[in-house]
Amino acid sequence: MKLYDLPPSPNARRVRIFIAEKGLDIPKVTVDMAKGENRTPEYLARNSLGKMPVLELDDGTCIAESVAICRYLEELQPEPPLFGRDRVDRARVEMWNRRMEHELLLPMIGVFVHTHEFWKDLVEQNAAWGESCRDNVTAKLAWLDGELDGRDFIANDDYTVADITAQCAVLMGKAVGVRVADDQANLSAWWDRVTARPSARA
Amino acid sequence: MKLYDLPPSPNARRVRIFIAEKGLDIPKVTVDMAKGENRTPEYLARNSLGKMPVLELDDGTCIAESVAICRYLEELQPEPPLFGRDRVDRARVEMWNRRMEHELLLPMIGVFVHTHEFWKDLVEQNAAWGESCRDNVTAKLAWLDGELDGRDFIANDDYTVADITAQCAVLMGKAVGVRVADDQANLSAWWDRVTARPSARA
Repeated sequence: MKLYDLPPSPNARRVRIFIAEKGLDIPKVTVDMAKGENRTPEYLARNSLGKMPVLELDDGTCIAESVAICRYLEELQPEPPLFGRDRVDRARVEMWNRRMEHELLLPMIGVFVHTHEFWKDLVEQNAAWGESCRDNVTAKLAWLDGELDGRDFIANDDYTVADITAQCAVLMGKAVGVRVADDQANLSAWWDRVTARPSARA
Repeated sequence: MKLYDLPPSPNARRVRIFIAEKGLDIPKVTVDMAKGENRTPEYLARNSLGKMPVLELDDGTCIAESVAICRYLEELQPEPPLFGRDRVDRARVEMWNRRMEHELLLPMIGVFVHTHEFWKDLVEQNAAWGESCRDNVTAKLAWLDGELDGRDFIANDDYTVADITAQCAVLMGKAVGVRVADDQANLSAWWDRVTARPSARA
C-alpha cells in the first residue's frame, strides 16, 4: 500500500492521524499540486477528481476520499476501534463524524478558500460566503462546547474518527482566525486532550 | 423505532429510499418546520441541531444524520447489502457515496438555498455562491456521465447507497433547473434505471 498525500490538507491529515492511531506504517508519496502533479494522466487514473489523499493497494486498486480510506484501514486493522464498538456506538460515531465534518470542517475550509490570500489567484473567491461560513462555524464551536459537557471525547468515551475530524477542523481554524474561545472550557480541555496524543503530529 | 421525517428534504428522502430498499416498515412522524416543531425542547433533545431526519430507537436513543441512520439499518437488516459486500467493495461504496454527496448533493442544495424563492426570507441568500454551485455541479454531472460508461450503477454492479445519494441530488436539481443533459447517455440510462425501482417513490 501507499498513500498519495498532500501535507497541508486537512483531509489528508485526517488519514495520517488515523494511520498513526492504528500504529500502521504506510509509505507516503507527496503530490505537488503547484507542479500540477495531481492533473497528470497517471494521477487522474488513480482519482479522476485529481484530489488527495488516495490509498493505492498492492494490486493497484485506488481508494479516494479520506473517510473511505479510514474505513478500509479500520477493517484491515480493527484495533483500536475508531469507528465505534457495537451497532449503536458505530451509528453514534458516524453521526458525530458527519456533524464534525458538516458543521465544523467544511465551513472552516469555506472560510479558508474564500477569504485567505493563498487562494486569491486559484479560485473565484466569494468573501461574503467565506464570512458567512465564519459566522456559522463560530456558532457551532459554542454549540460543541455545550455538547462536550461531561464528555472526554466527541462521540463517546473513546477517541474516535469524530475527534480526528474535529481536531483537523480546529487546526484549520487557526490559519483563518477562528479559534476556540477562552470561556469554552469543555472544548479547550478536549483540544488539550487530543493534541497531547502522539498522533496529533502526524 | 420511528423516523422523524421532513418529506421534501433530500436527506430525509435518502433514508426513506434506503428503508424501502431494505423492505423495512418504520413508522414516520412528519416534523413541521413551518410551525417550529423542530425547535421545541422535546425535538432538540432528540437532535440539538434541530435537523431531520432522526431515527428514534425503542429505548429512546436518537440517531441523527441520514447516513448514520442508514448504516444502523444496514447492520440491523444486512440484506440486500447497500454499503458493499467485502472490504474493498465497502471502501468503494463509501468513496462513491461521498463523491455523490460532496460533488452533487451539497452543491445542488447550495443552488436551492441560495437562488430559490423558497429560501428568500429564511436565510441570507448569496446568489453568486448559488451560481458557482450551479456551475460546479453542472460540470460534475458531465464528469459522472463519463465515469458511468460501462457501468449500471454508481459504485459497482449493485444498486447501493451511492445511487440513493446521487438520485436525491438529481431530483433536487430538477427543482432548480440543473438537469442531466440530453447527450449524457450514461447518466440518462442510469436515471431511468434507478427511478424504475419502487423505492424511488418513497
